[in-house]
Amino acid sequence: MTKRLSDCRVTVVGLGLMGASLCMDLVQGQLCREVRGVARRAETALSAFFEHAVDQATTDLYTGVAGADIVILATPVRTIVDMLAQMGPLLWPGCLVMDMGSTKGDICAAMQRLPGHVRPIGGHPMTGKETAGYESAEAGLYRGATWALTPLPRTDQETVDLARTLVTAVGAEPVVLAPQRHDRLVAAISHLPFLVASALVHAVDQTGVEDPMVWRLAAGGFRDTSRVAASDIRMFMDILMTNREAVLAQLDTLDAQLHGLRTLLADGDEAELRARLTHSHRLRAEWRK
Amino acid sequence: MTKRLSDCRVTVVGLGLMGASLCMDLVQGQLCREVRGVARRAETALSAFFEHAVDQATTDLYTGVAGADIVILATPVRTIVDMLAQMGPLLWPGCLVMDMGSTKGDICAAMQRLPGHVRPIGGHPMTGKETAGYESAEAGLYRGATWALTPLPRTDQETVDLARTLVTAVGAEPVVLAPQRHDRLVAAISHLPFLVASALVHAVDQTGVEDPMVWRLAAGGFRDTSRVAASDIRMFMDILMTNREAVLAQLDTLDAQLHGLRTLLADGDEAELRARLTHSHRLRAEWRK
Repeated sequence: MTKRLSDCRVTVVGLGLMGASLCMDLVQGQLCREVRGVARRAETALSAFFEHAVDQATTDLYTGVAGADIVILATPVRTIVDMLAQMGPLLWPGCLVMDMGSTKGDICAAMQRLPGHVRPIGGHPMTGKETAGYESAEAGLYRGATWALTPLPRTDQETVDLARTLVTAVGAEPVVLAPQRHDRLVAAISHLPFLVASALVHAVDQTGVEDPMVWRLAAGGFRDTSRVAASDIRMFMDILMTNREAVLAQLDTLDAQLHGLRTLLADGDEAELRARLTHSHRLRAEWRK
Repeated sequence: MTKRLSDCRVTVVGLGLMGASLCMDLVQGQLCREVRGVARRAETALSAFFEHAVDQATTDLYTGVAGADIVILATPVRTIVDMLAQMGPLLWPGCLVMDMGSTKGDICAAMQRLPGHVRPIGGHPMTGKETAGYESAEAGLYRGATWALTPLPRTDQETVDLARTLVTAVGAEPVVLAPQRHDRLVAAISHLPFLVASALVHAVDQTGVEDPMVWRLAAGGFRDTSRVAASDIRMFMDILMTNREAVLAQLDTLDAQLHGLRTLLADGDEAELRARLTHSHRLRAEWRK
């Protein structure tokens, strides 16, 4: 018996940027039967309820997930892993359990250990903002975004289909791939840029200790390149600690590239330096998002 | 006798993004007596003239600068250096010569060799776009931007004052500093971010050769951090080749920072890693531009 999204009671656990934005899309689009939000703080739960971001709100996980057809975990990665370890008995039979965490290996391993009566699948929308929290949430955040879905060995086609339906309903484009492959790829396009941005800010800070004028001269190049350094650190600590191998490998790749450029510049090898910079210029200019 | 900007005939050599945007501000604001543009290509000169970006346009340097009270060089750095070596005899007595090049050491050295009857000063507006060329030019580009002015030993106060007046008239905020100091600081906040962005694109490309899906998952973090890799390569080759020592020093600083982060991650030293990332988060979040 295939479930229709419009018949489902959906519970989103975590009303930060990602979770609350999803709730708003579900409520405003009348995409499902009911939207419940579970927040850590009572203040957030009340705001979400009175601002119609959710139909129901609570700070109690048990109350929140009781009777839900779909439960979506939208907290930092290691909180998701902890919740998955304890919430199995709270879930109703047939409940689809998805998450919105930024790494998928540890989460999907924890999902694999859920009781047999629930239906887990990993998920990760490829979008965000530097500003975190409920206050930054907005309807339409997922429109046009790629949304990774990472099935486990136990995930059946019906579960993949319902997850696809939900993701598509909020305007995102689902992409199905294995958890390990997801983690390897996001290490390159998300976790590495974050560390690079942080290192750049530290480098400028080092120059700024001697000459604070550097901050006054800083403009668009620094602004864009360093922007993600201002991302939520709690979220990123969980990301880095649950994807260490892949991130370390990407750091080594970047290191080799930077050293290559450094050597060409030190040697004054203009032809080869121009060729390399032209290659990255072309790749970046052709990539559209 | 102090010159007033409103009495000056201003010639801008180079009608790319920076030069043409300045012309538009001068013409639209009626800030000076006449605005002449010198373009490399006839097509650009004609466009600038018929679109009222300039009062007069030519492709001939001699015609362009003849009789000018202020000449502003707005081409890539090494072209500016070459022009300075040959244009001295073309300039009228008392002519203020400024430039908009991204590095100041070589340019100010070439300016110091100009004939005694002209009045040189280095300049560099701290703004830009990834898209180069006349087509990207726009009035108001300099509003709110910091504009570095780098006097030479021979630059008198009157020259500094007139340059300040011009810069302020287009809405920018002048900052006076020595050429070498400028070059050391922009290595940190402009040249380093460019090389970092290029290396990041190469690193993602290396992952993408094995798994092209990486480009599909790439979102905001990659977009912002890599944006400047799509900057004008001819301009950046001149920048890098005329500021090698300072850029190499900044690459080494970044390298040390990246290795520090790598070691903490490899060792699983969460407390120290969090402290470092929190520091760069705070610095970046507090920096406003």
